[in-house]
Amino acid sequence: MLKLYYAKGTAALAVHITLNELGADFEAIEVNVRADEQRSAEYLAINPKGRVPTLITDSGGLTETPAILVYLIQIYPQQNLARIDDPFMFARIQSLNSYFCSTVHVTHAHKTRGTRWTNDPTALATLQASVTDNMTDCFRLIEEELIKGPWALGDHYTIADPYLFTVTRWAINDDVNIDQFPTVARHYAMMNERPAVQATMLLHR
Amino acid sequence: MLKLYYAKGTAALAVHITLNELGADFEAIEVNVRADEQRSAEYLAINPKGRVPTLITDSGGLTETPAILVYLIQIYPQQNLARIDDPFMFARIQSLNSYFCSTVHVTHAHKTRGTRWTNDPTALATLQASVTDNMTDCFRLIEEELIKGPWALGDHYTIADPYLFTVTRWAINDDVNIDQFPTVARHYAMMNERPAVQATMLLHR
Repeated sequence: MLKLYYAKGTAALAVHITLNELGADFEAIEVNVRADEQRSAEYLAINPKGRVPTLITDSGGLTETPAILVYLIQIYPQQNLARIDDPFMFARIQSLNSYFCSTVHVTHAHKTRGTRWTNDPTALATLQASVTDNMTDCFRLIEEELIKGPWALGDHYTIADPYLFTVTRWAINDDVNIDQFPTVARHYAMMNERPAVQATMLLHR
Repeated sequence: MLKLYYAKGTAALAVHITLNELGADFEAIEVNVRADEQRSAEYLAINPKGRVPTLITDSGGLTETPAILVYLIQIYPQQNLARIDDPFMFARIQSLNSYFCSTVHVTHAHKTRGTRWTNDPTALATLQASVTDNMTDCFRLIEEELIKGPWALGDHYTIADPYLFTVTRWAINDDVNIDQFPTVARHYAMMNERPAVQATMLLHR
C-alpha cells in the first residue's frame, strides 16, 4: 500500500488530492512541521531532503511533487489525467507543474522559508516584503498566458489542476487578490466543489 | 523542424546536449541575455516568461527544462533515455530533474538573478554571499543521497545526466569544490568526454 507523508500548507496537498481523485489505496501520515519533525533523524531516513511530500511505494520512496503526480497517473491510468500518450499535451502539463514547483513555490517560500537562502534577519524581512507583489506577477502570467480554463489545460481535468489549486491557496494566503484573475478564481471555486478536494481538505485545514 | 532558443550559462544547455545526443534535426538560436534580449517584445511573443530554453515544435512552443527533456525522449524514443515505460524509474529520473530545477537552479540564481525576489541592493548582496555554502549543501545531498554513479541513476545514461552536468557547471562557477564529491566529479569528467557534450559546448563557452 502507498504511504503519503504530508504536512498542512505544503505541496503535498496536490499529491493528496490526486490520490483521492484516483481512488488509490493509501495511508496518509502527517509530518508535524511546526515541531520541525521533517528534520528529525527518523524522517530524514525516509526523505533526506527533510521535505514533504514523500510517497512510499513498493519499489521505494519518491520525492518531488511533479514526479510523484506522474507516477500516480502511470499506476492508476484509468482516468488518463496526464495524457502521457500525447507527447505535446503531456509536455504542456509537465511544463505547468514545473513552473509551479520552480517559480511559484519558490516565490511563495520567500515569505516563511527564506532561511533556505540566507539567515540574515534584515534580508529575510526584505524578501518577505516583496512576496505579495511577486506572487501577483506569477498569477498574472498564469492567468494571461499559461492556463486555458475552465481547467488548467482546457476542457479536461489533469494533474496540473490540483497543483494549481495548491499554489492558488498560497497566493490567497500571501494576500494576492485573485478576483483580478477570473480564470484562476473560477478554477479555484471549481476545485473546491470536487469531492476529492473536499475529502482531502478535511486533513489540510 | 525543432527550434531551440538558448543562452550560454543557462539550463538550456541540458536541452541542447539532449538534442545532440538524440541526433535531432533542430536549429539553435542564441538569445543574447547580456543585452536583455529575453525581455524584448519579440522574444516575449515566443516565451512570455522571458526565459530560456524555449523549444518550438510543430505543435507549438514548450518551456521548462524537465518538460522539454521528456518531450524529446518521447519523440525520439530510440535510446530510451527516460524509461517512461518503468513508472518508478521514470519517477526517479523526473524527481532528480525536479530537484535540479526547483532547488539547485534556484539556489544558484540567488547569485546573479536575485532580482527575481527583491530589488534591495543590501539584501541582494547578502543573498549572493550565501550561494557557495548553499550550493555546497545541495551537492553534498546529491553526492550522498540522490545519485548512484557512474551516471545519475546508475548504469544507464538518462535525461537526468545532462541536467546534472549543467548544474555542476554552475556549482563550479559558484566556487564549490566538487573534488570533495567524487561521484559528481567523475560524472562531470565522463560527461565532458561525450561527443554530444563536446559538440554542444562549442556554442556554450
